[in-house]
Amino acid sequence: MIVIADNLRVTLPAIGRAVERLDPEPIRQMVHACIVAGAQAIDINSGPLSRAPEEKMTFLVRTVQETVDLPIVLDTASPRAIAAGLAVGRRKAMINGVSLEPERLKRILPLARQYDCDIIGYLLGPDGHVPADAPGRMEVAVALFNEIQIAGISPDRIVIDPVVAPLAWQDGNRQNMAVREVLRTLPELLGFPVRTIAGLSNLTTGAPNPEKRRRYQAAFLPMLVCAGVDMVLLNVLDPALMRVARSSQRIVDRTVFSWH
Amino acid sequence: MIVIADNLRVTLPAIGRAVERLDPEPIRQMVHACIVAGAQAIDINSGPLSRAPEEKMTFLVRTVQETVDLPIVLDTASPRAIAAGLAVGRRKAMINGVSLEPERLKRILPLARQYDCDIIGYLLGPDGHVPADAPGRMEVAVALFNEIQIAGISPDRIVIDPVVAPLAWQDGNRQNMAVREVLRTLPELLGFPVRTIAGLSNLTTGAPNPEKRRRYQAAFLPMLVCAGVDMVLLNVLDPALMRVARSSQRIVDRTVFSWH
Repeated sequence: MIVIADNLRVTLPAIGRAVERLDPEPIRQMVHACIVAGAQAIDINSGPLSRAPEEKMTFLVRTVQETVDLPIVLDTASPRAIAAGLAVGRRKAMINGVSLEPERLKRILPLARQYDCDIIGYLLGPDGHVPADAPGRMEVAVALFNEIQIAGISPDRIVIDPVVAPLAWQDGNRQNMAVREVLRTLPELLGFPVRTIAGLSNLTTGAPNPEKRRRYQAAFLPMLVCAGVDMVLLNVLDPALMRVARSSQRIVDRTVFSWH
Repeated sequence: MIVIADNLRVTLPAIGRAVERLDPEPIRQMVHACIVAGAQAIDINSGPLSRAPEEKMTFLVRTVQETVDLPIVLDTASPRAIAAGLAVGRRKAMINGVSLEPERLKRILPLARQYDCDIIGYLLGPDGHVPADAPGRMEVAVALFNEIQIAGISPDRIVIDPVVAPLAWQDGNRQNMAVREVLRTLPELLGFPVRTIAGLSNLTTGAPNPEKRRRYQAAFLPMLVCAGVDMVLLNVLDPALMRVARSSQRIVDRTVFSWH
């Protein structure tokens, strides 16, 4: 399992200000902290970037790349920002992401094709909503898989995100049961070892304090790991959560375990 | 999920001495601690009880029952001790347990029938070994289920234990994958909502220190919970582990989640 840091996000005031001022130092500091914590890739969550998307994403990608040679993920709804990020990427970035929403299909898929890069596919219907149950999500996955192929993108470029639901949603637990089922059975359904990804922080949206957030994320992460998820986006600056990630991985590894 | 304390065991020196001297106080203290920690049942792990099995098990069951009104589990290979424990049980005890080993089938099943009590069925073959893969364990489960019915015991009395393997075993991870698969699919295979149980402490046999033991148990427990296990035997005196048990349970519950 690949652990992707979800810590670099413009919604953090220090990062938001740094992006506005094109000040690389706070970005570098955050990326440094993520490397030390064990991140294996960095998600650049720039938000929608309504003003100057190209300039800001170029700045972000360059700053991250100057700091570390890890894979990067371009996490924005702005096709212009994605295009700019891909253009300056030293190595292939991953696009985060596409869904069946027509506008996204039309504007983002051609970029994935042009740059031959990985792209995250969210299991959201054309209306932007996620089907509540596993069969509904499977249908969306199949449709998304078809769109990808129609767009001339190699099927092994897609990474499916079954969309972790907040616990606090009325049917959150049921949806997360569907998430685990999709992770476990999708490769067989598609007849193809399709990669999967999940965003852990979503689970605890609305949590009243960091302790509760940590506690539920720490219990949900092993469930994702044993369901076979290939990549997880998480808060790598939580050492307890990183220990859970490592222990869970070692429990499901096919290599021989050793205590030492 | 029902959390059963595995803390009352004669291999702990204080408990072993108390059983030898028939001194109730250390037993009461341990049971008290387990109640405060949130145990929902108490496993009485008396070991083989080679000398005076009836007297010792009677003492143990009476002492536990004087302290708390929780279900008890009679965890011993001695049929004489089990019979004595069942005879003085204020409410029905659960027998821990039986397997396809001929001696156990012959001597323990009749007790389960006589007292109409729950009985744990370990997925061990007639030779006392656990099959390494899931299909092997399923075969044993079906054979055990048949033996139970031949013995005139109602099938809903059996609680299947797929036998958690120590991580440190050469094929431990593979076996534990089989454990999770059995938990997930056995009810469907048997065409019956058969209950399941797992002993968590087994996972970390040989762990070099308590911190590592805790870490791996905390990562494995959510995997058991999301595989649908009905009962878990664990160290209830580890508060971190109990928090994981509660959080995991709330993540898979069908009731609506609330942060408050």
